[in-house]
Amino acid sequence: MNANELKGLLEAVQSGQISPEAAVERLKHLPFEDLGFAKVDHHRALRQGFAEVVLGKGKTAAQVAEIVRAMLRRKGSKQNILVTRAGTKIYAALRKLNRAAKFHAVSGVITIERNQEISGKGTIAVVSAGTSDIPVAEEAALTARMMGNRVAPLYDVGVAGIHRLLNHRDALTQARVIICVAGMEGALPSVVGGLVAVPVIAVPTSVGYGASFGGVAALLGMLNSCASNVTVVNIDNGFGAACVASCINRL
Amino acid sequence: MNANELKGLLEAVQSGQISPEAAVERLKHLPFEDLGFAKVDHHRALRQGFAEVVLGKGKTAAQVAEIVRAMLRRKGSKQNILVTRAGTKIYAALRKLNRAAKFHAVSGVITIERNQEISGKGTIAVVSAGTSDIPVAEEAALTARMMGNRVAPLYDVGVAGIHRLLNHRDALTQARVIICVAGMEGALPSVVGGLVAVPVIAVPTSVGYGASFGGVAALLGMLNSCASNVTVVNIDNGFGAACVASCINRL
Amino acid sequence: MNANELKGLLEAVQSGQISPEAAVERLKHLPFEDLGFAKVDHHRALRQGFAEVVLGKGKTAAQVAEIVRAMLRRKGSKQNILVTRAGTKIYAALRKLNRAAKFHAVSGVITIERNQEISGKGTIAVVSAGTSDIPVAEEAALTARMMGNRVAPLYDVGVAGIHRLLNHRDALTQARVIICVAGMEGALPSVVGGLVAVPVIAVPTSVGYGASFGGVAALLGMLNSCASNVTVVNIDNGFGAACVASCINRL
Amino acid sequence: MNANELKGLLEAVQSGQISPEAAVERLKHLPFEDLGFAKVDHHRALRQGFAEVVLGKGKTAAQVAEIVRAMLRRKGSKQNILVTRAGTKIYAALRKLNRAAKFHAVSGVITIERNQEISGKGTIAVVSAGTSDIPVAEEAALTARMMGNRVAPLYDVGVAGIHRLLNHRDALTQARVIICVAGMEGALPSVVGGLVAVPVIAVPTSVGYGASFGGVAALLGMLNSCASNVTVVNIDNGFGAACVASCINRL
Amino acid sequence: MNANELKGLLEAVQSGQISPEAAVERLKHLPFEDLGFAKVDHHRALRQGFAEVVLGKGKTAAQVAEIVRAMLRRKGSKQNILVTRAGTKIYAALRKLNRAAKFHAVSGVITIERNQEISGKGTIAVVSAGTSDIPVAEEAALTARMMGNRVAPLYDVGVAGIHRLLNHRDALTQARVIICVAGMEGALPSVVGGLVAVPVIAVPTSVGYGASFGGVAALLGMLNSCASNVTVVNIDNGFGAACVASCINRL
Amino acid sequence: MNANELKGLLEAVQSGQISPEAAVERLKHLPFEDLGFAKVDHHRALRQGFAEVVLGKGKTAAQVAEIVRAMLRRKGSKQNILVTRAGTKIYAALRKLNRAAKFHAVSGVITIERNQEISGKGTIAVVSAGTSDIPVAEEAALTARMMGNRVAPLYDVGVAGIHRLLNHRDALTQARVIICVAGMEGALPSVVGGLVAVPVIAVPTSVGYGASFGGVAALLGMLNSCASNVTVVNIDNGFGAACVASCINRL
Amino acid sequence: MNANELKGLLEAVQSGQISPEAAVERLKHLPFEDLGFAKVDHHRALRQGFAEVVLGKGKTAAQVAEIVRAMLRRKGSKQNILVTRAGTKIYAALRKLNRAAKFHAVSGVITIERNQEISGKGTIAVVSAGTSDIPVAEEAALTARMMGNRVAPLYDVGVAGIHRLLNHRDALTQARVIICVAGMEGALPSVVGGLVAVPVIAVPTSVGYGASFGGVAALLGMLNSCASNVTVVNIDNGFGAACVASCINRL
Amino acid sequence: MNANELKGLLEAVQSGQISPEAAVERLKHLPFEDLGFAKVDHHRALRQGFAEVVLGKGKTAAQVAEIVRAMLRRKGSKQNILVTRAGTKIYAALRKLNRAAKFHAVSGVITIERNQEISGKGTIAVVSAGTSDIPVAEEAALTARMMGNRVAPLYDVGVAGIHRLLNHRDALTQARVIICVAGMEGALPSVVGGLVAVPVIAVPTSVGYGASFGGVAALLGMLNSCASNVTVVNIDNGFGAACVASCINRL
Repeated sequence: MNANELKGLLEAVQSGQISPEAAVERLKHLPFEDLGFAKVDHHRALRQGFAEVVLGKGKTAAQVAEIVRAMLRRKGSKQNILVTRAGTKIYAALRKLNRAAKFHAVSGVITIERNQEISGKGTIAVVSAGTSDIPVAEEAALTARMMGNRVAPLYDVGVAGIHRLLNHRDALTQARVIICVAGMEGALPSVVGGLVAVPVIAVPTSVGYGASFGGVAALLGMLNSCASNVTVVNIDNGFGAACVASCINRL
Repeated sequence: MNANELKGLLEAVQSGQISPEAAVERLKHLPFEDLGFAKVDHHRALRQGFAEVVLGKGKTAAQVAEIVRAMLRRKGSKQNILVTRAGTKIYAALRKLNRAAKFHAVSGVITIERNQEISGKGTIAVVSAGTSDIPVAEEAALTARMMGNRVAPLYDVGVAGIHRLLNHRDALTQARVIICVAGMEGALPSVVGGLVAVPVIAVPTSVGYGASFGGVAALLGMLNSCASNVTVVNIDNGFGAACVASCINRL
Repeated sequence: MNANELKGLLEAVQSGQISPEAAVERLKHLPFEDLGFAKVDHHRALRQGFAEVVLGKGKTAAQVAEIVRAMLRRKGSKQNILVTRAGTKIYAALRKLNRAAKFHAVSGVITIERNQEISGKGTIAVVSAGTSDIPVAEEAALTARMMGNRVAPLYDVGVAGIHRLLNHRDALTQARVIICVAGMEGALPSVVGGLVAVPVIAVPTSVGYGASFGGVAALLGMLNSCASNVTVVNIDNGFGAACVASCINRL
Repeated sequence: MNANELKGLLEAVQSGQISPEAAVERLKHLPFEDLGFAKVDHHRALRQGFAEVVLGKGKTAAQVAEIVRAMLRRKGSKQNILVTRAGTKIYAALRKLNRAAKFHAVSGVITIERNQEISGKGTIAVVSAGTSDIPVAEEAALTARMMGNRVAPLYDVGVAGIHRLLNHRDALTQARVIICVAGMEGALPSVVGGLVAVPVIAVPTSVGYGASFGGVAALLGMLNSCASNVTVVNIDNGFGAACVASCINRL
Repeated sequence: MNANELKGLLEAVQSGQISPEAAVERLKHLPFEDLGFAKVDHHRALRQGFAEVVLGKGKTAAQVAEIVRAMLRRKGSKQNILVTRAGTKIYAALRKLNRAAKFHAVSGVITIERNQEISGKGTIAVVSAGTSDIPVAEEAALTARMMGNRVAPLYDVGVAGIHRLLNHRDALTQARVIICVAGMEGALPSVVGGLVAVPVIAVPTSVGYGASFGGVAALLGMLNSCASNVTVVNIDNGFGAACVASCINRL
Repeated sequence: MNANELKGLLEAVQSGQISPEAAVERLKHLPFEDLGFAKVDHHRALRQGFAEVVLGKGKTAAQVAEIVRAMLRRKGSKQNILVTRAGTKIYAALRKLNRAAKFHAVSGVITIERNQEISGKGTIAVVSAGTSDIPVAEEAALTARMMGNRVAPLYDVGVAGIHRLLNHRDALTQARVIICVAGMEGALPSVVGGLVAVPVIAVPTSVGYGASFGGVAALLGMLNSCASNVTVVNIDNGFGAACVASCINRL
Repeated sequence: MNANELKGLLEAVQSGQISPEAAVERLKHLPFEDLGFAKVDHHRALRQGFAEVVLGKGKTAAQVAEIVRAMLRRKGSKQNILVTRAGTKIYAALRKLNRAAKFHAVSGVITIERNQEISGKGTIAVVSAGTSDIPVAEEAALTARMMGNRVAPLYDVGVAGIHRLLNHRDALTQARVIICVAGMEGALPSVVGGLVAVPVIAVPTSVGYGASFGGVAALLGMLNSCASNVTVVNIDNGFGAACVASCINRL
Repeated sequence: MNANELKGLLEAVQSGQISPEAAVERLKHLPFEDLGFAKVDHHRALRQGFAEVVLGKGKTAAQVAEIVRAMLRRKGSKQNILVTRAGTKIYAALRKLNRAAKFHAVSGVITIERNQEISGKGTIAVVSAGTSDIPVAEEAALTARMMGNRVAPLYDVGVAGIHRLLNHRDALTQARVIICVAGMEGALPSVVGGLVAVPVIAVPTSVGYGASFGGVAALLGMLNSCASNVTVVNIDNGFGAACVASCINRL
């Protein structure tokens, strides 16, 4: 039953053809999904003021371009556009669509910034342990920025050189949310979590070899963190960490 | 919005107080769950003609007795009652409520049979490999019977003595659905699946030691079965296998 | 010993050349497999009215072509032919053999449809969660169709947007068997299983990264489903799911 | 070196006894930790307005009682006291110390509520899937409440009966943070995450058997959630989830 | 159909009551397993001259006693009787049945030796690494002896004290088959395998703690042995190793 | 110290130049390994009458050619030469060295047969389940033949078509040792082991996908075999299985 | 052949009874291990000045007492005696043998100190993260002390409160070897390793729950440590860590 | 605040511009890390007299060249330069910078030796089991040499040919630290550890196939070593083993 049909039913009630009781009965047995218009668009809720996102991985340059073209066409929309896990081919295709497209080679992220408004309440610090964690950290940082947050990147502050981390304590304590990216033993979130009183989103990375098992060692380390303000997202999921952080930063 | 409120709205339409268009608008923005009466009671669908089931594990004898007392009280209901993973204490409590309660010690199942009607279309064969798989097989067989199916148990027909299994080929080919319970290497469903053309529900058991890893070896064996009519349920899940088999046997 | 030889033996008994006792002795020591005619051709049983199937993976185009040529040559046979996990080279080779050959690029399936008869009793719904699950879902859908079933594909109805799934409840409740394809957390079969009263065959896919462990997360999720009408096949095994579903749909 | 000693050094500089250069040298070689006053007491930061917490597990009743007695003695402090993973023996010991001690048998939590002030900004919803997840959910709910948050418990809303969950959508959308407790397939956070725009803290529970592997199946399901506002804490860690949720709810 | 019935059929052929063609038809459709006499009694083959075996674990003393009583009753049989994984209760029950019953407390094996004939061609050496591996080694040694083999036990010759092992080289080189029992790193079979030219059956034990994972470390070590005459049985499976060794020793 | 030097020392004792006591002292402090002649050349023992073996994997064609050239040069030696895991480049290099070199493409084995003498006492049957197991089966069969054994290959006799296997029962019962190669669920060795009374060497293969985990499912199935004459070697280790089988076949 | 026999042989050579050639032959065929005196008593080497050690676990009080009585009887020996993983029963038995026996309840260690000489060159620091790691830390500390080392215990200095650790930097930098005991995420050794230039022996503990997997999370964290002076021993192996540390401290 | 600023502050105290109390206050609230000079440069400590190290993996030739150019520019520094996990491209780039650059192809290590001084006290023996372990062994050996240690490589001494190992006992007993590199079953460190009284650093390698699981089998074997002087580093971590060994060799 679509809106027209419902209107028809109600008109039949109005005209006395169908009694209100009979109409209640008919509506009662309608599966709600047939009402169509009653659906929650939860995505809108999630995206309000957020970036539009395309996962580049597993899509051809043409497919991504088509999706982004549709985004660019929507009138009135000035949301930022974010393409993750992209390569140079996708970038070339998007560059033709919009000259503002930028390729961030370290993380494979493409951004089309159309809106520099900051809607997040505080700063999101993105802390990473080693140089090889930077791709994931940059994905997180760019995602957070595209979603309207102030971002403070603090890279290369691993726990084996604890003083480098302590040198950044000010930046850490000024953040409203911290994203903590680390591979190998995944110890960074525990130390960072102990230094601050705000939520720490831990992102294990698949960096390392041997018994790092593609990030599992770091993941387990983070899940067992002895700091009580640490939660964890999936391995290499910089994008997801930024979504959660941004979601917290709007509260 | 409950049924009364909806009726009020429709009466307002009838009386001309509200136009059909306005009513459509109001209904459009109602969250469907507030309609109340539109909900699917999927459980009813599942249970029609089926047994009522209580998981005994983790509940005290008093708790189980209370649940079963309520089941027994429902007028007009003559469904069978099944308590799984129960012990002698629960049995003692239920025996006081209803003299028909039977305790099946091997599987820890208690049955209160109130209805011997057979509603399943064919026979469900329950095949098991070793004597130590019998508790799970019996749980499956009793569940299937309580749900209104004819059940043919074929125990102790492991693959290392293939002729014992082949001796039962007639019983196998006469079944409409086969539940296949096996621990250790979990090879039985592959052999059985190759002998019949009906669906085989494989149940790995936690029987075994060492590298059986509590049923994981059997589970993996079954998931990798080379017979194309085999599906798998969780380790030791005789009850679940019988639910699926019963569900298929009613089609 | 074939039927002729057996007849000869029996004729010798009839003519008195061999005593019944001696014949019993000879028959006693015959390995049953030499009787030939006593063997179950379970494959025939399985395939009656079904498609002929070739697994393309690991075979050269020439090898697949040779197998399919033999299938095409069999007089009187009008079974559909299905090649799974194939590529463009295999397709090119088969196209030369038969102009009806079609390549389904998303799933790597090649079909040669020679028979559009529907022999399955009801409809098999193939539900999938994300766009990246579609290759496996399409393999399942094509296999089910080639095996003579009506198929209703419902793609992209993941659990994080529950309303898209609920919108398809009609299609779900009209299916006789449901194949449910999902990667990542593998939650879809639980939700679908809760909405219907028919068997749900769950197929985990290797989609995802990090702690999805090539489909293990989805597999475990499905094995632990809280819906009692869910069974599971191996990761990415769309073909196997369709075999089981088809096998159920003929009951 | 404490503040007095430092002052002494500076007075010696002032009086000319020690040159500024020599003082710099002396300060240079002081281990910073001897400065005393420069240290961050991050625990204070974390605990401000929070409950005092004792992990009961692995401690004797006497040990717990001694710790709590010290907490009760601190003048001016009116913080709530929370003992997790406790049993009846610990409760008996604490009951003697303070008549306000309450034992919550389902979760094994003991609370001594001394302060009912609500300091968290919004409501923390605690959603759980099955009855066996309630101990962990209750640990989370009590922890959150003791830490000064409004808590809305929504129990027994598993994904296989999706309508029960949808019935609570209002409560969900009114929460500022959601804790989502689930065992078995761990699918609940994905569905909940799709319905709301606030952060969802997922807690896998060790409920289940066979291939649930003591909560690993649920943990993996949650880490691979397709909803982008979900983060995860350790298995059965209701306390930790509440700490993070409370930490977010104060932002 | 048993031999008598078959004879009847053949007599009917002989007497002309049934034509050979009709007899062929009837025999054709007989499931071979109904022939009865055509079946392989592989168990007899395996057991000829071997011990009768009962797995004590999971059986009550009464159940084991009943099984053993039946074994003792069989006329003419003088096979040794072996009960594995038994305790003192089972021993007490068997002691009443037969005064020759002996309890080997270290391994939980009960033997009733009725036949001291040596039927194995050579000696089976049973080598074990540490004192805690002796229960499994003894189970292997007793099983091998009960099955009619000469057994040479060489205990406590771990690889970290390589000279103790080398001191026994004579015994090793005189064995026809070697069973090698080791927990922890499972290195012993590799070293032993390098010293001899006969088959080495490796038995990992669940001895150890931490990352020994209940014998998995030893199992993996043995599967990856760099000696090419090593095969492996399941963790703690001393009985199985002796079966294989005995089977080889009869060749 | 070699034999000559030892003789010199003893001659000095004989001639009185060195006292027996002094000689004892000198010998005492000699590391035994310097005695040279006391060492066990276990490799000779293993290889007597066996093939010379080169593992091709990880070596360049030039490296393999150099090793084989040295083998060919040894005067008087007429042992077979076996190169495993080789490709066409290695084959081209060896073909130049010796025209008898043959490349077995399915298994990647190169053989240079110089000796057709059969030294193994019986026949080694090599049974495999599916076509994709044939590479490993062929490696086993060629290795066994090159080591002087009669080999009976029985391919494509998987457990889902049990009659194909039973058709070969004669061949199975005539073997002295059986190598059983299977991927997927690894059920074949259990069925075969139940049909015969000789040792069965099980080789899991990495064939399969999804939850076969590169052969782990088959490996676990084989370790948990319910047949008591089954032992296991590493995944894909056809060569190792043949070494053990050959070693048994010489006893 | 012992030294006397060898001397006899050499005297026979001297006297001309046996020719040097014949003596060479006889010596050639002697298994080296019969020489006796050529063997390395590596245990003596390891133990010189070390404690005598008994693993209490798996032994009865009587068995331990018997072993310790033998140790006490050895004349001239004044080595310390260490019993690990013992309980009160073993302690009671040893207390009767020697009044110096002390039971350390936290770690289950019993010491009989007979020698307070310090033979290790520097101090071994034993650092542990949480109170529940103390049993393992104490086992390490007592073992190290009994083996003649100065020991500096630094407990409860976890990484989430990094300043507590930094407060002990002096003690850390004064150690010659550091044993670092930690459960949960196992991050402590990385931080400690970054602060010092001496070897750090990391001991994972089985402390924790959920995804700590009995110490595996900590083990993996330590193996993947980003500090380059960290090595790892088995889970809960405080004794082993002390052995290695003591071995290093004697260099 | 740097040293100059601190001096300025102290001069202000000296001159009376600032009172000692005010200075204390200012110093009190300075985060210690801003003091600059108080920081431990633990890297300097670690590297004193050590090689400078660059991890080649994951870096372009240009990136590595830039880093090495900076190292070469530092005046007065004559440290050795070590690039690990490098290829021919990186080598070509470094060769242009410095003619002393040498490429070690087996291990992918590039060395620029500028200092042949031996600072380690004893010899580090590097023992490896098979030819395929040599890359990791060579990485360890070159790292140890570049860090100023005498190195004794003992390759190809696996445990299945125990006499080859025993032949090198002298070299083993003369080492001060032993690095033991082994794949497959990882048994070598246990045997070596039993022969010597010095620390043994075990390095598992990812050599092997099937159930070696990329080095996990060897890793577990080493962690469970029955020799008490063995510690373990990560799989394939030859560099790390050499760091620890060098660190021990300087004590």
